Parts: sequence; C-alpha cells; structure tokens
Amino acid sequence: MKNELSERITVVDTSLDELLPQYDNPQSVIYDAMRYSIFAGGKRLRPILMWETARIFGKEWDCVKELACALEMIHTYSLIHDDLPAMDDDDMRRGMPTNHIKFGEDIAILAGDALLNKAFEVALLSKNPNAYKALQVLANSSGTEGMIGGQVVDLQSEGKDIELSGLQYIHSLKTGALIRSACVIGAILAGASEKEISAIDEFAKNLGIAFQIRDDILDVTGSADELGKPIGSDEECDKNTYVKLCGIEKSEMLVNEYSQKAMKALSIFGNGADFLIKLTDYLINRNN
Amino acid sequence: MKNELSERITVVDTSLDELLPQYDNPQSVIYDAMRYSIFAGGKRLRPILMWETARIFGKEWDCVKELACALEMIHTYSLIHDDLPAMDDDDMRRGMPTNHIKFGEDIAILAGDALLNKAFEVALLSKNPNAYKALQVLANSSGTEGMIGGQVVDLQSEGKDIELSGLQYIHSLKTGALIRSACVIGAILAGASEKEISAIDEFAKNLGIAFQIRDDILDVTGSADELGKPIGSDEECDKNTYVKLCGIEKSEMLVNEYSQKAMKALSIFGNGADFLIKLTDYLINRNN
Repeated sequence: MKNELSERITVVDTSLDELLPQYDNPQSVIYDAMRYSIFAGGKRLRPILMWETARIFGKEWDCVKELACALEMIHTYSLIHDDLPAMDDDDMRRGMPTNHIKFGEDIAILAGDALLNKAFEVALLSKNPNAYKALQVLANSSGTEGMIGGQVVDLQSEGKDIELSGLQYIHSLKTGALIRSACVIGAILAGASEKEISAIDEFAKNLGIAFQIRDDILDVTGSADELGKPIGSDEECDKNTYVKLCGIEKSEMLVNEYSQKAMKALSIFGNGADFLIKLTDYLINRNN
Repeated sequence: MKNELSERITVVDTSLDELLPQYDNPQSVIYDAMRYSIFAGGKRLRPILMWETARIFGKEWDCVKELACALEMIHTYSLIHDDLPAMDDDDMRRGMPTNHIKFGEDIAILAGDALLNKAFEVALLSKNPNAYKALQVLANSSGTEGMIGGQVVDLQSEGKDIELSGLQYIHSLKTGALIRSACVIGAILAGASEKEISAIDEFAKNLGIAFQIRDDILDVTGSADELGKPIGSDEECDKNTYVKLCGIEKSEMLVNEYSQKAMKALSIFGNGADFLIKLTDYLINRNN
C-alpha cells in the first residue's frame, strides 16, 4: 500500500505544482508562502480519497484533478491559520517551521486567504458537467456548517470538559466534513447516482470518525519520530480527545466499530471498491 | 442621488440578511462576528455597481443578487483581516470597534475566512446561466492576481518610497480589481456581448482609479466626522498616496482625467447608462 500511495502522491503533487505555479511579479512572496505550505509533505489523503472514489465509477485523476487540488488547498490554508499565534500558536508542523515563523504573521494570514481563494479559482477550471454541484459541496463542507464551524467550537471548548457527543460534533465538522466532501465530490464528478452518492457519504462519514479516533490514539501511543510532532502534545494542551474521554481500550473498540460501518457501506459496489477498502484498512491501522 | 442610493442600500441589506442568516447552534458566535462586520454600515458600492451595470442591459437586482452579496462578503472579509494586529492593527472602523477588538483575534481570523468561504457558498446559489463564468471572474479578482496581490505589495511597500507606477499597481489590484469585477460580473450575468463587457471593463478600470485618488484627497481635506476615521491617518502611517506623490492639485487633475475616461467608455450605451454616469459623478465628487 505504501508504494501505491506514493505513486498517487506524485500524481497529486504534479497537478498541484501545475495549478499553483510560482509567479515572478511584485507579489511573488505570496506564491512562495502558499507553495511552502502546500509542498510541506502532506499525505494528500483528501485528493486520493476523491480520486479513489471516482475510480469506483470507472473515472481517473483527470476527472477530479481540479476539485481534488482545490480541496487540498483548503485543507492547507486551514492548517496555516490554525497555527497562527492567535490560534494554536504552533512554531513547527511536520518537522518544519510553520508558515508565520517562516514568512511573518501578515504574509501567513494572506497566504491562508490566498489558498482558500485559489481553491475556488482552481476548482472553477473544471470542465466536468457536474462541476457546479461539486463546487457547492466543496464550499459548504469548508464553511461555517463544516470545517470552520468545527474550528470555532473546538476553540471555544479548549480547557473545558466536554461530553463525547460534543467531541463528535467538533470532529464531524472540523475534520469529518472535508473527508466526506472528498468522497462525495469524487462520486458526483464521476456521475454516480443519488443512491450511490449516499452510500459513499455513509462510508466517508464513518471513515472520518475512525480516522480521527486513530489520530487521538497515536498521539498517546506513537513515537515522536513517526508522528512528526511531540508525543502527548494533545494532553499537554489539555485538548479533548477520544482517549481522554473513553480511554485507549474503548477508543480502539470505537475505531473498529466505525471502520466496520464504513466498509459495510461500500458493499453495494462489490469488487469495485477493493482499493478503497484496502486504503481504509491502512488508514485506520496506521502508526503515523 | 442620496435617496436613490439609500433605497438601493436597503435592497442590498435585505438580501445580505437573507443570505447570511444567524444560526442557533454551537458555532453561533461565528455568525455574530460575520454579521457584525457585514452590517457595520458599508456603502454597498460594489453590489450597487453590479446591479446598475446589469440595469444597462435591462436586468434587475434578482439577476445579480447572489454574486453581488458574495462580492460584498469578500470586500468585508478583507477589511476584517486588514485590521488585524499583524496587519494594519486598527481598533476602529466606521466609528465602531473592529472585529478582533469586539470578538477576539481568533474569532476575527475565522470570521474573515468564513466570509470568504460564504461568498462562494452564496454565489453558487445563483441559477443564472452565466454564473460559472461570473464566478471565475469573482475568484480571479479577489485572489493573488487581484485584491490579495495588491494587499501583499501594499504591505511590502509600507515605509518605503515608491514611484507613481508602483502606487497605481497596488491600487489597480487592491481596490481596483473588485470594482472592475463588480461591473464586469453585472454585464456577464445580464448576458452582455464580449464588446459590451470590454466597454464596461474599461469604464470600471478608470472609475476605480478616480475613486481611489478621491479617497486619498479626502484623507487630507475631509473632516473626521464626514470620513468616520481620523484625518491625515494615511500620512501618519507614512502610507504612499496620490497626494503624497503628486500633491493635491495634480491629484484633482487626475481624478478628472480618469473620470472622463470612465464616462467616455459608457458612451456606446447611450441613455441606458444615465444612472451609472450620475453615480460615477457622485462618487468622484463625494466628500466622505
């Protein structure tokens, strides 16, 4: 799976480089800053999920390229703004200085804005007949009833005790919304039926939860080297996590439960979803 | 003209209220923050320009509503982020505390992000057959080769002496791009021909320059009460302005020159552009 993923990452990176070129003009520093964070070693999970979903319906990278790169830009802008001093105040990400440490806070704010804006510029290059509908899903999933909404509730719950339902609400928006839209957009662009889109959405919703719980577990059990961030950093920040609320054993059970649900939703596609099932298995059993 | 404008502002405000409703959910503070800045007394220049351009071609507010409100949201998000401590560090705008003073820096960053995102959510509600093309113009005009590009160059030129050409470059992007896209999008949505769109673009390009020079002159000659910000605040910040580079007399001549060019571009529309000509005249001879 590692080889298969790294081949796909290369394809995604090539398109990102093509769709976010460096300009040589008075504002060129903004391209430096945008490209710095885009090429900081992301796993390209969302673009690959979009691509693999489209493949269930016989479509390839070309079908999703613009929307997939747009989604990765939105994910990246959210990380730049999350790291700002007024937000999580992080100096390092994936072993590199964060955007505001490298370029200054003013350029980092604008680089985040610019990546969100660029996401729509790039998505609007799509000539897919279902692009308008796909763009609606993209915009809604990254907004106040999606990712941004999750960031707001997360900010406000820091340092407070919350219930499991509150934690699930935060994650369903903050990380879940983009994972869902990745898969749903892949299905829409590939011309899937409403019933098929629903099945994909059910898969992605459960994958997102399982993925997040695994993330929380890894923060406690993984090695700093594997993770690229200090172990126990969530605990140190007094963050609400599945492990803090349920313990490791229950969290492992939940990962299992949600990944089973995710796999089950794919059953209507038969062998067509084989790679997506393997990918799901890999993601929820990963150690970094 | 004041009455005619205030009637239009009411129409724009009603649509903004409808398209950016308050939600009662765990992230409701983000809607408070977005609405606080959206309803902070803006003149709605961009939506009105879009509307009036569409009227040349016989179309009304319904034709441009979604894109016009989207553009106003983009303008507003840029003000919120511009006011942040890491940017211009302004505590007051239009006589009210700025967004980060009222809601805190973290929520203000997210409210800006959310308004940019919401702009696309709202624009994508348009059912106009030319909406896709209009969205492309919208996204390009607010990005790194438009408004954000202008902000970057402006930031980098602060405290430095620049040439008139450099100042014009900054303004053509920072404020000019959205004024141009307001008019061009109005023409596109109204089904104008390529030749007509070009004439509108030429009008808007020159209007944008004249409008900006008037702004710079007013910062020196206006009264604080009329402007809603301290007089001479540009000078105090050592900002590059037309007045600083050319003096008041030359600046007045330039306003006149560019507004003549703007009016001339509208001549192909005959009487149809009467209101837009009156509006242009009003905007460049305003005292606040």
